[in-house]
Amino acid sequence: MPLSLPPAARVGALLNEVDTPALLLDLAAFERNVARMQAAVSGAGLALRPHAKAHKTPAIALAQIAAGAVGVCCQKVSEALPFIAAGVKNIHISNEVGNATKATLLAEAARHAQMSVCADNARQIEWLAAATREAGTKLDVFVEIDIGQKRCGVAGSAEVMRLLDDLAPHGQLRFAGLQAYQGRVQHLRGHQERFEAARRASDRAAVVVAELSKAGVHCETVTGSGTGSVEFDLGSGVYTEIQAGSYVGMDVDYARNEYAGALRFEHALFLACRVMSQGDGTRAVVDAGLKSLAVDTGLPTVWGREADYTIISDEHGTVIPRSGPVPGLDELLLLVPGHCDPTFNLHNELVVFRDDRVEAIWPIAARGLSR
Amino acid sequence: MPLSLPPAARVGALLNEVDTPALLLDLAAFERNVARMQAAVSGAGLALRPHAKAHKTPAIALAQIAAGAVGVCCQKVSEALPFIAAGVKNIHISNEVGNATKATLLAEAARHAQMSVCADNARQIEWLAAATREAGTKLDVFVEIDIGQKRCGVAGSAEVMRLLDDLAPHGQLRFAGLQAYQGRVQHLRGHQERFEAARRASDRAAVVVAELSKAGVHCETVTGSGTGSVEFDLGSGVYTEIQAGSYVGMDVDYARNEYAGALRFEHALFLACRVMSQGDGTRAVVDAGLKSLAVDTGLPTVWGREADYTIISDEHGTVIPRSGPVPGLDELLLLVPGHCDPTFNLHNELVVFRDDRVEAIWPIAARGLSR
Repeated sequence: MPLSLPPAARVGALLNEVDTPALLLDLAAFERNVARMQAAVSGAGLALRPHAKAHKTPAIALAQIAAGAVGVCCQKVSEALPFIAAGVKNIHISNEVGNATKATLLAEAARHAQMSVCADNARQIEWLAAATREAGTKLDVFVEIDIGQKRCGVAGSAEVMRLLDDLAPHGQLRFAGLQAYQGRVQHLRGHQERFEAARRASDRAAVVVAELSKAGVHCETVTGSGTGSVEFDLGSGVYTEIQAGSYVGMDVDYARNEYAGALRFEHALFLACRVMSQGDGTRAVVDAGLKSLAVDTGLPTVWGREADYTIISDEHGTVIPRSGPVPGLDELLLLVPGHCDPTFNLHNELVVFRDDRVEAIWPIAARGLSR
Repeated sequence: MPLSLPPAARVGALLNEVDTPALLLDLAAFERNVARMQAAVSGAGLALRPHAKAHKTPAIALAQIAAGAVGVCCQKVSEALPFIAAGVKNIHISNEVGNATKATLLAEAARHAQMSVCADNARQIEWLAAATREAGTKLDVFVEIDIGQKRCGVAGSAEVMRLLDDLAPHGQLRFAGLQAYQGRVQHLRGHQERFEAARRASDRAAVVVAELSKAGVHCETVTGSGTGSVEFDLGSGVYTEIQAGSYVGMDVDYARNEYAGALRFEHALFLACRVMSQGDGTRAVVDAGLKSLAVDTGLPTVWGREADYTIISDEHGTVIPRSGPVPGLDELLLLVPGHCDPTFNLHNELVVFRDDRVEAIWPIAARGLSR
C-alpha cells in the first residue's frame, strides 16, 4: 500500500477537524471585504483591478471579477498563467519585464488574455517589441513613474516622453497610461500621516499627467494605490484604477494602520495550528513556524485569545497566555499572519470555511510562481 | 496551444541561461561540505543523521546517506513522506506528535521505514501507542529534554523516568534514548561564547544521562547538535548522533559565526536573480524578493560583487553597488540567502550546477509539507 498524505480538510467537515498547519479563509468576512472595496471604488467612478500577488488564488480572482473588478494585476508573468488558465481575461503585469525570455512568455500569454505590462527603460521596450512581433500579439504598455518609492519607474514626464518615442514604431505596443505606486505609504500607521504621504505621492503623479497633457499625451489609465492608501487615492483625481490586494484577507501589519471612516477591512485570513507540546507546562508550542507564516513584518497574533505568539522557528511557535491556563495539547488556535502576501506563497491550498464548516478547498495555484 | 511555463533550466545549459529567480546548488561545494561533516562526525566515532528540514530534497538526503549518514531527521511526519518514497529507510521525527491524526500517519509510515519520534508528554505516548497498535507497527521513541532552548522537552531525569513508565506497557514503542537540542546556541557569533554555551547545554544533557544511568536506564542514543555547535558537541562525550542540517548549503546567518579550526563549511546554496529595472539609474532592481528568499535572519548578500542587497519587497530587491557601475538590465546576480531552511521551502526545484553548467534539476519534494 503506498503511503500518501490525506487532505488537510474535507468539504463539509468541522473547522476543528482540519489538519494543521492549514491556511484558512473565512468566507463571510472575505465576501464583505470584496463587496466593500468594490462599492468604494465603483462609487468613486474608478476601476478596481485587485492585485493577485496578494493571494495567488484563481478562485479569489474570479470572485473579485464577479463582484465588478475589471481584471487583476500580477507581479510576474509566470504568476499570471494559472489565472489565465482559470479564465481571467484581463491581466496587468504591474512590473517591468527585464529580458527576452520573460517578454516571450508574456507575448505568448497575450494570445490567451488581454495583457498589459510596465516599462521604465528603452531596452525593455525592445524586448517586448521583438517578442510580440514574433508571436503576432499585442500588448498594452504602461510607463511606470517613481512617485517616491525609489524602486522601479522613471522620474518624470521628460523620461516618459522619451519612452513614448521608443514605443512609437511598434504598432503592436499601445501606450495605455501610467503606473504610479508608492508601497511605503501603505504601511504608515497614523491616519493623517498616511493621508499626507499618499497625497504627496498622488500629487507627483498628477504633475506628470498634467505635463504630458500639455504636450498632447493623454493617459487613458493611471493605475496604482493599495489597501493602505486607497481611501485617500479614491479622491485624488489622478488614479483611474486601483490595484489594492491585501484587503481580501488582511494581516497584522495592515491592521496596525489607523483607519477612519467606513473603508476598513476584516481579518478573513487565518493560519490554523495546534499545540504539540507544552514544554515544562508554562507555554504552548504550536506546530506552525517560519514554514507556514511569513514574518518579514512581524510575528502573527493569536485570534480571539489572551495570548501572544512570542518566538518562531522553522516549525514551532511559542504561545504564552497573558492570563488563564496554557492552551492544551491538540488544541486548535487561529493565528493572524503578519504579512498576507508571502504567507499565501507558502501554502498549496486554502481551506475555505463559513461559520464552523469547511465549504471548499481552493488551490493557491500561483504559489511559487515568481519567474 | 496551451500556455505552459518552460523549465527554469535544462541539464547541460550554461548557468547564465537559467531563468530567474531560481535556487541553485553548487555541486562541488556541496560535495565538499557533505564529505567534511561526515569525516568529522565519523572521526569522532559518532553517527551523523543530517536534518532534512534544512533542504527538503530527497536527492540531497541520498547523497548524505551514500557518504555515511545513518538516516535523516525530519521535523514533521508529512515531511518524511517524500524521503520514504525516495528510498530513505531510517527517519527520525525530531519533534513531538501532538494528536491522533499525526500519530496515525507516523504509524503508517513505520510500515515503510524505520521511524522514530520524540515525546515530552504522556498524552503523546497514548496517541503513539494507539496508532501503532492499530497499524501493527513499531516505533523508537526518544524522550526530549530541554537543555536551555525553552521550547519542547521535559526538564530532567525525574520527568524522563515518568515517561518511561508510560512507555513501558507498550511493547511496540521502544525507548531509544534522549533528544537534546539547543537551537539558540547555533547562532551565537563568537567562537568562545558559542563553545561555552554549547558546553552548558551538553552538560545539562550529561547530568540527565548520568542520573538515568544511576537509576539503571541506559540511553542508547543521545541525538542533537547543529551546524553551529557541532565542532564542540563532537567532543562533549554526551551526543552519540549529530543532527546538523544547514552545513550542506550554508547561509548568511551561519556564515556570520566565527569558526576556528577545520570544521567550516562553504556556501553551496545561491539564489539566481536578474536585474529587471534600474529605476532612475542609481540602483539595480532584481527580480527576487520575499517570495524567493526567507529574511527572518536578515537580507541576502550579493555573491562575489561589491554590492549590497538593501531593500526587499514581495518580488523585488534593490541592489546598490559599493563601487563601480550599477549592474545592467538582464545581468545575472547570485545571492546568498539569509536563512537556508525556509528559503528551500519557497522553491519547488533546485538547479544543480558544476563549474558553469547545469548538471541536474532536483525536486524539493518536501517543500510545503509542514503537517
